[in-house]
Amino acid sequence: MNAEIIAVGSELLLGQIANTNAQFISARLAESGINVYHHSVVGDNEERLLQTLSHADKRSDLIIITGGLGPTKDDLTKETTADFLACGLSYDEESLKAIEQYFIQTGTTMTENNRKQALVLEDSTVFFNFHGMAPGMLKSSGDKSYLLLPGPPREMKPMLVDQVLPYLQHHKTENSSIHSKVMRFFGIGEADLESRIEDILSEQSNPTIAPLAEDGEVTLRVTARSSDLNEAEHLVDQMVRVIEDRVGDYCYGYDQNNLLQKLSLLLEHKKMTVSSAESLTGGLFSSELASIPGASNYLSGGITVYTDEAKKNVLGVEKDLLDQYGAVSRECAESMAQQIRIKFGSDVGISFTGVAGPGDYHGIAEGTVWIGVSLSSGYTASFTLTLKGDRNFKRISAVKYGIYSLIQLIEKDAGPLKV
Amino acid sequence: MNAEIIAVGSELLLGQIANTNAQFISARLAESGINVYHHSVVGDNEERLLQTLSHADKRSDLIIITGGLGPTKDDLTKETTADFLACGLSYDEESLKAIEQYFIQTGTTMTENNRKQALVLEDSTVFFNFHGMAPGMLKSSGDKSYLLLPGPPREMKPMLVDQVLPYLQHHKTENSSIHSKVMRFFGIGEADLESRIEDILSEQSNPTIAPLAEDGEVTLRVTARSSDLNEAEHLVDQMVRVIEDRVGDYCYGYDQNNLLQKLSLLLEHKKMTVSSAESLTGGLFSSELASIPGASNYLSGGITVYTDEAKKNVLGVEKDLLDQYGAVSRECAESMAQQIRIKFGSDVGISFTGVAGPGDYHGIAEGTVWIGVSLSSGYTASFTLTLKGDRNFKRISAVKYGIYSLIQLIEKDAGPLKV
Repeated sequence: MNAEIIAVGSELLLGQIANTNAQFISARLAESGINVYHHSVVGDNEERLLQTLSHADKRSDLIIITGGLGPTKDDLTKETTADFLACGLSYDEESLKAIEQYFIQTGTTMTENNRKQALVLEDSTVFFNFHGMAPGMLKSSGDKSYLLLPGPPREMKPMLVDQVLPYLQHHKTENSSIHSKVMRFFGIGEADLESRIEDILSEQSNPTIAPLAEDGEVTLRVTARSSDLNEAEHLVDQMVRVIEDRVGDYCYGYDQNNLLQKLSLLLEHKKMTVSSAESLTGGLFSSELASIPGASNYLSGGITVYTDEAKKNVLGVEKDLLDQYGAVSRECAESMAQQIRIKFGSDVGISFTGVAGPGDYHGIAEGTVWIGVSLSSGYTASFTLTLKGDRNFKRISAVKYGIYSLIQLIEKDAGPLKV
Repeated sequence: MNAEIIAVGSELLLGQIANTNAQFISARLAESGINVYHHSVVGDNEERLLQTLSHADKRSDLIIITGGLGPTKDDLTKETTADFLACGLSYDEESLKAIEQYFIQTGTTMTENNRKQALVLEDSTVFFNFHGMAPGMLKSSGDKSYLLLPGPPREMKPMLVDQVLPYLQHHKTENSSIHSKVMRFFGIGEADLESRIEDILSEQSNPTIAPLAEDGEVTLRVTARSSDLNEAEHLVDQMVRVIEDRVGDYCYGYDQNNLLQKLSLLLEHKKMTVSSAESLTGGLFSSELASIPGASNYLSGGITVYTDEAKKNVLGVEKDLLDQYGAVSRECAESMAQQIRIKFGSDVGISFTGVAGPGDYHGIAEGTVWIGVSLSSGYTASFTLTLKGDRNFKRISAVKYGIYSLIQLIEKDAGPLKV
């Protein structure tokens, strides 16, 4: 099955946003064994969209169109596709009800434009939008399939992953199974990782191995194809073990369990609570933990102490210590971790202090970071990093190193801090 | 002059990277008054690239192709374009010398593949690559122009900005300038905003008006064209005033100054400090503020109080108040804002409490949010919201409402809280 992706929206042609939808959809389809041979972008313009649909219809089996399902006048994807396929539009009752309900709940006025969002191509399979208003839909026309998805990534992504892909998997006629596993690495760069498995990478065929670096983490996706799912799984497991033999020390987890999820599961499992004292990171650590449902089970809370005053007055770091060692020091990081743990009565306290930049701070180089950890057993430790990248990349990296060190610490029952 | 952008590279179709080149080129062309009506992506495949060139040649004046100029076997953009235009390839001496020089300097071996990078379309204008090896080129064919640019963004961007655009500007026959302004709105949905200016939107021609919704904010980009830049600016200003007459109450700013930047500038300008007490948002407000360089001038800090215990013990919210009204209440939000302001000695305290979900909490509906504000003058206020979307969208929305309310409050010198 060959697919192509058409993104509709003048904001893409004006360069206001990048076509990250095409990237996301392509990656998911690749994992599902569906080839993507074309991406196109057209503006909110009927004639050009019709022309693009006509090109796509001649060369692809599955035509995926994102964007232009919204309530406004320039949203014309459904109307144009209906024209092209010579089919009608009708209201999807479930979506219409949800839209009406929203306006009742929020006490705001529903316009006719909003109703329009519930219109779908006749005789299509409808995918309810759990994160917005406009539903998605899949319409068959001859031997071609047209999939319409909403444009906002936060609506499109879960709809694709949770609804559309399982539906396609269930209905696909070819007899080929695909299995893949993501290996997650931290503390090693992409180039270094790849050079250590260069021979494996250059010989890959089935399974394939796709490296990806993102926000300081590196992943390897190992994917095998076979007519038999068990065989595909076996091929993947075999390759994962080969890679682990080389670089297993840096592999902290698999599949969807990224650093943050892994820490959450660990804390939950060990019934431990954590609190954070954040200077450099400004609340990013606690905010990241709070992004996981159920965080209140293990996140006691935290204090953002952005100034020396706050470190003394709110957190209780000693004035003498600050005067002697400064805010970006082992001593300050450890004191911050101890103070926050005691203040919140949590099992673990963690602290972040450093120089995010741009520029040095009181003679300390931009990128210098200290992370402290304190346990209720009395164990206290800290480590330092020199981080590169822009201000926010440094903050994100520091949080990841903090999470990674907590995972090491908890998994080893408060053994030595490993970074 | 109408342009289109063709990106060549299988890594785009596999979803390994997003097509940020198309975004960058589009934005620069829009600024130069060149319309972009199509983006396409094709893999490193001769047949499909030929087909794409043939579509482009029928509908665009300037066809921009990025990627596939490199040394490897699958780099076939130049060869395929030469085929399509029925022209030859020849070595660009300056590029060839620079490539040879590189291998002499680094003491590495130059392969025949590397020489290939210096090949250019015959009779084209060549743009030397100051950040890599493969030069760019512009080739005229009938009334069409073909622009080939290297794929790596760090080579393509400076070549486009420093060499290609000045060249096009100098040689272009039309005399047209473009000016645009982005209007930023908050507190009004995209559909509602558009329905209030529906007549303006449906009559637009010059200036054009492009709406965009993102993360709970809505923007309108107003763009005018004229042979005279002053006239284009005048047309934009006139339209902005017409729109402001209708929906100016919701317009908080212009161009690059989003909510966060606007609040930072205001706090800096008024020399005010802020601290936050965050339950629902878990530190996201302080982390967002800390993402701006210089945040230490106005961000005193904050406390994440994720549990009732922390609200009492660390922040100092009264036990009786919590018992009587609960953590998600006007009373608790206002007490949290007061306590945090006093604790940090800041000019403003802000608080966030609510039910992020999934699921209701102690009988309070998922999505219920209370935001409290306290000023050193003694003024205290709060407001409630009902937010939709997933857990993290609710947290982001709540932070944006908080930022918006602070902007209103500070701009009006602590007048009534407006949301």
